[in-house]
Amino acid sequence: MELRKDPITRSWVIIGDDAADVAPRTSGCPFCGPSSGSAQVIATLPGLSGNLWSARSVVHPQALYHIEGEAGRRGEGLYDRMRAVGAHEVLVENPRHDGHLWNVTDGEVEQFLRLAALRIQDLKRDSRLKYVSIFKNHGDGAGQEFDHPTSQLTATTFVPRRVLYELRAGRDYFQSKERCVFCDIIAQEERQNVRVLEIRGDYIAVGPFAPRVPYETWIMPRTHETAFESTAASRVGSLLDLAAVLRHTLQRILTVAESFHLVLHTSPNSQHPSESMGYWKTLDDDYHWHIEIMPVLEAKARSYTFKETYYSPLSSESAVKRLRDAKL
Amino acid sequence: MELRKDPITRSWVIIGDDAADVAPRTSGCPFCGPSSGSAQVIATLPGLSGNLWSARSVVHPQALYHIEGEAGRRGEGLYDRMRAVGAHEVLVENPRHDGHLWNVTDGEVEQFLRLAALRIQDLKRDSRLKYVSIFKNHGDGAGQEFDHPTSQLTATTFVPRRVLYELRAGRDYFQSKERCVFCDIIAQEERQNVRVLEIRGDYIAVGPFAPRVPYETWIMPRTHETAFESTAASRVGSLLDLAAVLRHTLQRILTVAESFHLVLHTSPNSQHPSESMGYWKTLDDDYHWHIEIMPVLEAKARSYTFKETYYSPLSSESAVKRLRDAKL
Repeated sequence: MELRKDPITRSWVIIGDDAADVAPRTSGCPFCGPSSGSAQVIATLPGLSGNLWSARSVVHPQALYHIEGEAGRRGEGLYDRMRAVGAHEVLVENPRHDGHLWNVTDGEVEQFLRLAALRIQDLKRDSRLKYVSIFKNHGDGAGQEFDHPTSQLTATTFVPRRVLYELRAGRDYFQSKERCVFCDIIAQEERQNVRVLEIRGDYIAVGPFAPRVPYETWIMPRTHETAFESTAASRVGSLLDLAAVLRHTLQRILTVAESFHLVLHTSPNSQHPSESMGYWKTLDDDYHWHIEIMPVLEAKARSYTFKETYYSPLSSESAVKRLRDAKL
Repeated sequence: MELRKDPITRSWVIIGDDAADVAPRTSGCPFCGPSSGSAQVIATLPGLSGNLWSARSVVHPQALYHIEGEAGRRGEGLYDRMRAVGAHEVLVENPRHDGHLWNVTDGEVEQFLRLAALRIQDLKRDSRLKYVSIFKNHGDGAGQEFDHPTSQLTATTFVPRRVLYELRAGRDYFQSKERCVFCDIIAQEERQNVRVLEIRGDYIAVGPFAPRVPYETWIMPRTHETAFESTAASRVGSLLDLAAVLRHTLQRILTVAESFHLVLHTSPNSQHPSESMGYWKTLDDDYHWHIEIMPVLEAKARSYTFKETYYSPLSSESAVKRLRDAKL
């Protein structure tokens, strides 16, 4: 595995070893079946109501990033490459093979969110790592890897491109207005109330003004918070509200799409003294964590026709209306 | 149809009218069948060897952009919107229903390239239009719309996001080095000769150093040229070499993938006096037109797993080797 930087877009791409990239067939589920004992467990949250555990993190069986060593960034003429140093974990959301985020209790979803926060906090202590991403690919259309309810985590020596764009936009906005752009978006959405899917306690689910795909939904804390993991650490009670909003939102999205991508966007690692090598120092005022959910629609052909320009056949107002009206 | 700007990534998204976005079923091919007479023809190139025409452009039957009126950009709090003013055309590559770019003569491919150049030149005279994109989606996996061999053209009141990134990178590189980054890439690729697929006359096909998907391929002129359409206008002979390189490259790519996206990246419109409203003034030295081809692989799941970071299981060197060795 190697990381290469595109000299034009300046984004990093992870390149495989050219080996066939197919998971070895094992008998049973690697996360709850008889062979699950061989998984390299990193962290475990204690079980609820008699279970041994509620959520846990294991090393990805075919990890793209490995924690040992230095990135060893080096040039080759115009080009840059470095070793794929980092972490790649599977977050097992629930011990039950059919315990999905949308059909378990809010308390069980909360345990998964708590595990996610703990893993981010832990990995951010490693100053080599610039960013921790948590994402979930559900359904064949989204490239789901495992049957068992899981999310994945990657910790990387660079900040992913889309997050960098968000950080830049947040910084620019803050410098001109001295306000957080996400906070302003939330205020406008609550005022206009045409793209709001749900408000519950400190959390809001909205369809973004310019969705990349129909039914795209963002979940955000209504009070300014830069990092997901500090929200989770400081406000124990409200994680249950987030769990409920997440669960309801996924229930609604599954009424219109069989597959979706979910990505948690938190702030980058602030352990570094400088902004060198793709590192980004947030001011704590110019970024606001959120969850992005992108459904994968069957009849998506034209949505993706314009690779350089997003086209969504459905407005966010209509999408939110349909999701709100969904029979759950 | 409406264009909305994402306040975070600052890219424009085209939003549909919420109507079912399905093409009305017509009997026969709309481009060569009995009903093809009803197509609104915009430009036609004369036929080769007895045919009435060789390539032609028609208005897209369900155009996303329409040429009448002003964009009427307006704000709504934080948000920006404008009307979908522009052009949306189907470029019929060949009069024959099975006349694909990879199985016709180089002369026929050249006619298609000439048509593309003519349409760009014509639309760039309209100072409202900032950019003209030409792209082809081939195969079910790429969202192909029509059976007949066609590409599509959109002319928009904004520069698409990926092109803007390229323009910025080219500008930055030129300002620090006084050289074109694409020219330097070509020089390094020719020197290293591990990712070169074909060199023919003034054209080169290469696998980029950091491919977004396995077998991604770029075709570029080896001599610095900012705009595709001026290459086509000035160097009549060499378009035949480009046609040959394009045809061979597609033949090779079809040995590894059934579907692909192809996008022509030319310079933005320079008719505008300023850089306002997303308009970009190239210096003629800091951009270099090229064609990007992105195969869509069946076993692509993990390639797309990381929505924020590209992961390609295959290095460009191995991909180029396999494509070079393909039995055609």
